[in-house]
Amino acid sequence: MRSHPFHPITGSVLPRFAGIATLMRLPLVALDQPLLQQVDIGLVGVPWDGGTTNRPGARHGPRQVRDISTMVRNVNRASGINPFAICNCADLGDTPVNPVDLMDSLARIEGFFDQIQAADVAPLSIGGDHLVSLPILRALAKRHGPVGMVHFDAHTDTWDAYFDGFKYTHGTPFRRAIEEGVLDPKRTVQIGIRGALYNDAEDTWGQAQGIRVIDIDEFHQLGVAAVIAEARRQVGEGATYVSFDVDALDPVYAPGTGTPEIGGLTTLEAQHLVRGLQGLNLIGGDVVEVSPPFDPSGNTALVGATMAFEILCVLADSISKRRLPARAA
Amino acid sequence: MRSHPFHPITGSVLPRFAGIATLMRLPLVALDQPLLQQVDIGLVGVPWDGGTTNRPGARHGPRQVRDISTMVRNVNRASGINPFAICNCADLGDTPVNPVDLMDSLARIEGFFDQIQAADVAPLSIGGDHLVSLPILRALAKRHGPVGMVHFDAHTDTWDAYFDGFKYTHGTPFRRAIEEGVLDPKRTVQIGIRGALYNDAEDTWGQAQGIRVIDIDEFHQLGVAAVIAEARRQVGEGATYVSFDVDALDPVYAPGTGTPEIGGLTTLEAQHLVRGLQGLNLIGGDVVEVSPPFDPSGNTALVGATMAFEILCVLADSISKRRLPARAA
Amino acid sequence: MRSHPFHPITGSVLPRFAGIATLMRLPLVALDQPLLQQVDIGLVGVPWDGGTTNRPGARHGPRQVRDISTMVRNVNRASGINPFAICNCADLGDTPVNPVDLMDSLARIEGFFDQIQAADVAPLSIGGDHLVSLPILRALAKRHGPVGMVHFDAHTDTWDAYFDGFKYTHGTPFRRAIEEGVLDPKRTVQIGIRGALYNDAEDTWGQAQGIRVIDIDEFHQLGVAAVIAEARRQVGEGATYVSFDVDALDPVYAPGTGTPEIGGLTTLEAQHLVRGLQGLNLIGGDVVEVSPPFDPSGNTALVGATMAFEILCVLADSISKRRLPARAA
Amino acid sequence: MRSHPFHPITGSVLPRFAGIATLMRLPLVALDQPLLQQVDIGLVGVPWDGGTTNRPGARHGPRQVRDISTMVRNVNRASGINPFAICNCADLGDTPVNPVDLMDSLARIEGFFDQIQAADVAPLSIGGDHLVSLPILRALAKRHGPVGMVHFDAHTDTWDAYFDGFKYTHGTPFRRAIEEGVLDPKRTVQIGIRGALYNDAEDTWGQAQGIRVIDIDEFHQLGVAAVIAEARRQVGEGATYVSFDVDALDPVYAPGTGTPEIGGLTTLEAQHLVRGLQGLNLIGGDVVEVSPPFDPSGNTALVGATMAFEILCVLADSISKRRLPARAA
Amino acid sequence: MRSHPFHPITGSVLPRFAGIATLMRLPLVALDQPLLQQVDIGLVGVPWDGGTTNRPGARHGPRQVRDISTMVRNVNRASGINPFAICNCADLGDTPVNPVDLMDSLARIEGFFDQIQAADVAPLSIGGDHLVSLPILRALAKRHGPVGMVHFDAHTDTWDAYFDGFKYTHGTPFRRAIEEGVLDPKRTVQIGIRGALYNDAEDTWGQAQGIRVIDIDEFHQLGVAAVIAEARRQVGEGATYVSFDVDALDPVYAPGTGTPEIGGLTTLEAQHLVRGLQGLNLIGGDVVEVSPPFDPSGNTALVGATMAFEILCVLADSISKRRLPARAA
Amino acid sequence: MRSHPFHPITGSVLPRFAGIATLMRLPLVALDQPLLQQVDIGLVGVPWDGGTTNRPGARHGPRQVRDISTMVRNVNRASGINPFAICNCADLGDTPVNPVDLMDSLARIEGFFDQIQAADVAPLSIGGDHLVSLPILRALAKRHGPVGMVHFDAHTDTWDAYFDGFKYTHGTPFRRAIEEGVLDPKRTVQIGIRGALYNDAEDTWGQAQGIRVIDIDEFHQLGVAAVIAEARRQVGEGATYVSFDVDALDPVYAPGTGTPEIGGLTTLEAQHLVRGLQGLNLIGGDVVEVSPPFDPSGNTALVGATMAFEILCVLADSISKRRLPARAA
Repeated sequence: MRSHPFHPITGSVLPRFAGIATLMRLPLVALDQPLLQQVDIGLVGVPWDGGTTNRPGARHGPRQVRDISTMVRNVNRASGINPFAICNCADLGDTPVNPVDLMDSLARIEGFFDQIQAADVAPLSIGGDHLVSLPILRALAKRHGPVGMVHFDAHTDTWDAYFDGFKYTHGTPFRRAIEEGVLDPKRTVQIGIRGALYNDAEDTWGQAQGIRVIDIDEFHQLGVAAVIAEARRQVGEGATYVSFDVDALDPVYAPGTGTPEIGGLTTLEAQHLVRGLQGLNLIGGDVVEVSPPFDPSGNTALVGATMAFEILCVLADSISKRRLPARAA
Repeated sequence: MRSHPFHPITGSVLPRFAGIATLMRLPLVALDQPLLQQVDIGLVGVPWDGGTTNRPGARHGPRQVRDISTMVRNVNRASGINPFAICNCADLGDTPVNPVDLMDSLARIEGFFDQIQAADVAPLSIGGDHLVSLPILRALAKRHGPVGMVHFDAHTDTWDAYFDGFKYTHGTPFRRAIEEGVLDPKRTVQIGIRGALYNDAEDTWGQAQGIRVIDIDEFHQLGVAAVIAEARRQVGEGATYVSFDVDALDPVYAPGTGTPEIGGLTTLEAQHLVRGLQGLNLIGGDVVEVSPPFDPSGNTALVGATMAFEILCVLADSISKRRLPARAA
Repeated sequence: MRSHPFHPITGSVLPRFAGIATLMRLPLVALDQPLLQQVDIGLVGVPWDGGTTNRPGARHGPRQVRDISTMVRNVNRASGINPFAICNCADLGDTPVNPVDLMDSLARIEGFFDQIQAADVAPLSIGGDHLVSLPILRALAKRHGPVGMVHFDAHTDTWDAYFDGFKYTHGTPFRRAIEEGVLDPKRTVQIGIRGALYNDAEDTWGQAQGIRVIDIDEFHQLGVAAVIAEARRQVGEGATYVSFDVDALDPVYAPGTGTPEIGGLTTLEAQHLVRGLQGLNLIGGDVVEVSPPFDPSGNTALVGATMAFEILCVLADSISKRRLPARAA
Repeated sequence: MRSHPFHPITGSVLPRFAGIATLMRLPLVALDQPLLQQVDIGLVGVPWDGGTTNRPGARHGPRQVRDISTMVRNVNRASGINPFAICNCADLGDTPVNPVDLMDSLARIEGFFDQIQAADVAPLSIGGDHLVSLPILRALAKRHGPVGMVHFDAHTDTWDAYFDGFKYTHGTPFRRAIEEGVLDPKRTVQIGIRGALYNDAEDTWGQAQGIRVIDIDEFHQLGVAAVIAEARRQVGEGATYVSFDVDALDPVYAPGTGTPEIGGLTTLEAQHLVRGLQGLNLIGGDVVEVSPPFDPSGNTALVGATMAFEILCVLADSISKRRLPARAA
Repeated sequence: MRSHPFHPITGSVLPRFAGIATLMRLPLVALDQPLLQQVDIGLVGVPWDGGTTNRPGARHGPRQVRDISTMVRNVNRASGINPFAICNCADLGDTPVNPVDLMDSLARIEGFFDQIQAADVAPLSIGGDHLVSLPILRALAKRHGPVGMVHFDAHTDTWDAYFDGFKYTHGTPFRRAIEEGVLDPKRTVQIGIRGALYNDAEDTWGQAQGIRVIDIDEFHQLGVAAVIAEARRQVGEGATYVSFDVDALDPVYAPGTGTPEIGGLTTLEAQHLVRGLQGLNLIGGDVVEVSPPFDPSGNTALVGATMAFEILCVLADSISKRRLPARAA
Repeated sequence: MRSHPFHPITGSVLPRFAGIATLMRLPLVALDQPLLQQVDIGLVGVPWDGGTTNRPGARHGPRQVRDISTMVRNVNRASGINPFAICNCADLGDTPVNPVDLMDSLARIEGFFDQIQAADVAPLSIGGDHLVSLPILRALAKRHGPVGMVHFDAHTDTWDAYFDGFKYTHGTPFRRAIEEGVLDPKRTVQIGIRGALYNDAEDTWGQAQGIRVIDIDEFHQLGVAAVIAEARRQVGEGATYVSFDVDALDPVYAPGTGTPEIGGLTTLEAQHLVRGLQGLNLIGGDVVEVSPPFDPSGNTALVGATMAFEILCVLADSISKRRLPARAA
């Protein structure tokens, strides 16, 4: 039923509700299989929400996204990209995690992505809460140096500490990443930021480091095309990561998340924004904060799976084009 | 409580949660009642989802839409049309169906609409999955010849076959209808099309037959008014059917459906589009793919009932105006 | 954990899911506590839905809004207003109500707001169905005379009577308020009106009294800025009340409500509209018709809590500025 | 599809999800139809919850029970009774109600049952909250004098007053009925009583009047057979009414109710108890307090519909046997 | 993380919410893998509900059971059996199905089980609706001749035809199986039968063929131990199949099913009954009618997974004991 | 509305859905209020689930139990105990917690209970996951020495370690408590234990220490009365704690929990068991593992609140009787 070892099983042969649920119906490739060496893009689950300060549940995100991602098809109607035709894609399973030890989990997750990097596989991850981006960036920076980032979110996630000084939560990953030198703030753009602040100075730190913050009001003033242009300008030609927190979207599109904020992006706006990243030097991405226990209709997981497909399209396009001259050389 | 035999019961007298649930609180008229001859527009349930390739449940659509349709009132605020004042409308009940035999069901459904046609009743149907449009079109074409269609959907539903050659599913009705000569592709427009494709060539067949496809991106480029103009131009003055698949809408408006695709129409856009059909030569319509088991808040049924009311308004306007010269003659 | 007696408890110290749920994590001040005299703005629950003609449940609104309002933070990112820094805000608990006697409930509610008025506390209430605005307006008018109102709603709520002449329902409060002289129709604007009508003449009464009705189509024709200007012009400089029925919003944002109508405002539009009221002479407000039993995802309560925060910001700004010259004098 | 004018439509011909939902798929007979004179047992909806002191929603009970009651079949496997073969049964629709006026509603409901009595139709009602039993008993007593009652409930519903003296709530119907002389306490038995009390003396009033209270602990001590014997002894040979509040059941069987109490009856125990009433002189019954908004799985409505069928079986048996000698005479 | 190629992954190493969801966390073995030859018991999904006459959704059963079955552990506390220690167990994936063609699906399913039989693998299947048992029995009978069956259900599923003579629905599999000679009625026992009948003669056919029907009342009269004894007596020493329809259970335990009937078995009774089958000559089993769309809490899938584990324990015990003398020989 | 400073607000005056939600509508007393010295029993929330190895959400337990506990009344109908009449009871709010640091949370929780002990207040806590019992026992043991325990649960929670040696999870609290000498295994009884095991030796450790384990099968063999006798014998006359994990109950009663196991206790059995503890030397108790995100109907919270009331009754009885001679002395 699979026309090629790395192609999704088609729903016109095996119904979409049938079969083992892997991400986008891709083959499952374990890290110790030789086949890993042929993989260009690895889809990975990071089932962990130990950094969540309010409503938990994102640990269940990868499995629900796997389930609903069986509804995804092959060709992006808007861009014409068929990622499975231009890159070898596979589901690499879930990273190891430890639900009762935060620091141990960060180490286990980083180790998994170190292994992927070693096989030259670009990661596209499904969280998990947003703290999972930190160990991913750590792993990526070992290869690429400090990376740039297009970051979709309602929150800047550059808070310093919670609960009397605790430094690692899903509100702090990008402050830590900048402090550690794995994320380049001058090549980072944040889109969709909104919601009330704890205090007036809350968001100044990131901007002081050079992050370009486009909050929801500026997004609407500029319009999608100008925001894309601004994002492209900010990240430039360097290695760039795409991080998509589903709470960037209005909670009607993504109620199943830990910290919803009303007044957010529509999915169509988000799709256009991601499509606008085509041609950047992309090295990986993630979709985080899908929390099934707060998602009675399942739409959040559908949105998460579809946004992952949109990221996959521009990522595959970028990788396949980088590879051509390399192979030609 | 009914001021006229064909008027809805008003909620200012009998609370909307009270009483037997009929479509829009209209009288129930069985096909064997003489009263059928006085009916101009028959609201019909088609409780069948045997053509569904993924998530079933649309068989429960008519009953849930009946329930929530008791919240519908009489006068369209935007257009001023009161359909119940200008046409005799009635709930004709459900068509017979056979949940375990697809071909038998198609025959039973077609037979029901043959009877309605014989009484010169224009049908407005509540599905059921989208395959139910095929037997309706077959029945209508017996009287009107190949009909034109304004088709709202995320999918073109002109796929050829599934599962090793099976020709009848909710992804194929309009290919069959065109092949059978009951639908005129050159007078057919599809609005809201989106979502990934199985392969690059998927949607070329319909367009090759002459269907005008306005996908979601073109919809946004043109804007509502231009899309209406284009749709009117395409269907022209011939007999025209309106088919509204609730998955044309973004899944936040209609999560209760079999094949949701993110990035769709808003209900307000859909309302404006349907209102823009006023003055066309309309002969019937349907609202399909409302699937209550996937609709935890019930909003999909509310949307389905309200869109049916919007279609009813333009249909009643069209019928009442056609009738005037006929009666004058 | 509270940095000031009237400041909210911060989520960076006590997690948002912890602690007793009060409105926006404010201190609870009973009407018989001396502390009431220091309160500028009193947040009040009115747990009553005895005026509901269709789907009940708004009696449970205050408690669910209290719960989810613990997610609200302090500073409005768009306007920069921190209401808790410029006014003393407190949760005054719930008004007394009688779930089995409508007229008794209206009297009990009015009495509660009389007490608040006596302490010069401006009320921001969480309903309850929309009939609760009537006793609030009665109490406010004793101090301010007939008040102006910016009213967000899908319905005009100026219907005369239901069920053979019964005058008090959640569809009639503003007709009664105008008849009683506690609401000034010439200083009242209604935004977001839509949905089918019972009959053609339904909405003429209010407009004949001078209400400026901006229905959803006019809202989209004018745009947010022009609607704000028109609303400001209509209410002028007199004492003005803000009433926000969550069914003004599209039901995807607020499914948990008694009488949803598709095709409504987005939350972002509503946020912009309320922010546009800054500078008016505001004396109080309410958010009504949050009905938890019809809100499976809880988003309606989140929307209600956030819109209450938006109203609080402009109300606190207005009060703090009025107080300055008074104090200077 | 109906083999006899008063027989249910069979699911082996018309699928159970199809067709207009009437109670047990019986014909709908309006009170002004001559056919009413042939009806032995009238199934009636009473869509009203104005007496509810806590969680509302029972006004939506009749419609949801109608929907799910289409799953009921004909022959009671345990007793062999086919009620539709021995009595003419019909759905008489809903009584008029007024959701915003308690006393008016009680009058409207009583008037409906007066009309039924006039046609010698025995009522089997679907509530609605438990206060609806009061106007039903008033109507029945006009014909039968003070009636006996087998009452299944978690609560005695013989409380005196709430909220500073208000006498009519769903916690008081049987105190009022006894005071008014329409219910004979010496021929009344209450089964399943449990839950904490407001105070020590709460339940003494009813027992002082002669009610036989079998609380849940005594129920388990005696066992089903002995409880049936005790109930039959208490009500004797006089005219007897059966009132079934679904909160008699454990809330796992009936979560969709206003005042659930853990530790209740199982449905199987309830079925056996009702079957044990065969042979009594039964004149009517009701199933009350089904509240759909609190019933996510719909099981409460299924339980309500099935218990209504169980009551219908013993009621039809009683009526058909009473009629025989009458007809023989 | 897997201590043996056929052992489940343990939750004390990989959290139960992590990793690809296979049945009971067993290895996935495709039919074309040589490893199949080492499998003793194959767990199989049959994602098909084309035989469902009322509420569909069981096609989604296998995937949801896979998800929740990751919570199952290894050792049956009551019996001490660790099925994974005594048999090689694997998840064989889902059978092919055709959601739009009933007869084609029956053929595809039968073909899958033919392949399993050829490898001498005993099947334990997760449905799907109950009609899937028919092709399984057809395949098993090719090897074993007419098999005996212990059948747990609310319904006998020996109805003849629906909808004007259609012979294949989920209400008819065992009539067909007996007619075809693949099921031996004299070695078949049905436990838990209840619910109203369409007519008096409905269930006589099966008993006339020799089926021993123990309805829910007889079950309670006999008690668990006597029912087990009676079931063992009826099926004797021949090859025996276990079919567990989750509607045998009371709908509070299994609301997610197509045709719930109140008054059913508890899960504990069902567990005791299945454990009582230890020592029979078991050749396979199934758990059917888990319908996720009607299962808001997910408990039905948990029950289905746990009952599958209970069946697996007695099946593995039977197989391992049969194998011993065979291997000794 | 409160007849005594420590009495609950009655629902016959303030409707149960109205007012701020405190545990059982008791007054809220902060640890720094002098009133604390008058409190006999402190109801405490412990909103923390950092020890959860599978499905999180118990951090939301205290708030939801507070909400639904407003339905609890005063007098235990079975035992006649009115705990509020014999002890001063208060809601002490929530303990501090740190959702992102397990060890820090254990320290914060223990500190809170140390303060309560200092004021001679007996704690009745609402979790939170079961690991919260460990810091509570640590605090209690400082005053009482190693305590005895009646423990209701599906699991023994005496596992050693998870995830490569991590010692603190909700599966290990009582192993740690015994190792630390704060729990006396020889005075500990565990009731309701069931579910499959990871391996054969899993539960031997606790029994080797002297714990009396009564698994679900022994519970049914002995019957409620004998189990009570055995539990009383095991714990004897020493200081005894009651720990009630809602997963002791069958998941139909408590679906909202992290690790449900089918085949559990009924609520009625649990109520009888707790009532059977009257007269023991009780010093505190808890109800844990209520996880609202997995509780669509809210019944788990109702069960949790009611079981807390049952424990409160026997605890208040014990405390009031101990106090009498002390006061007499």
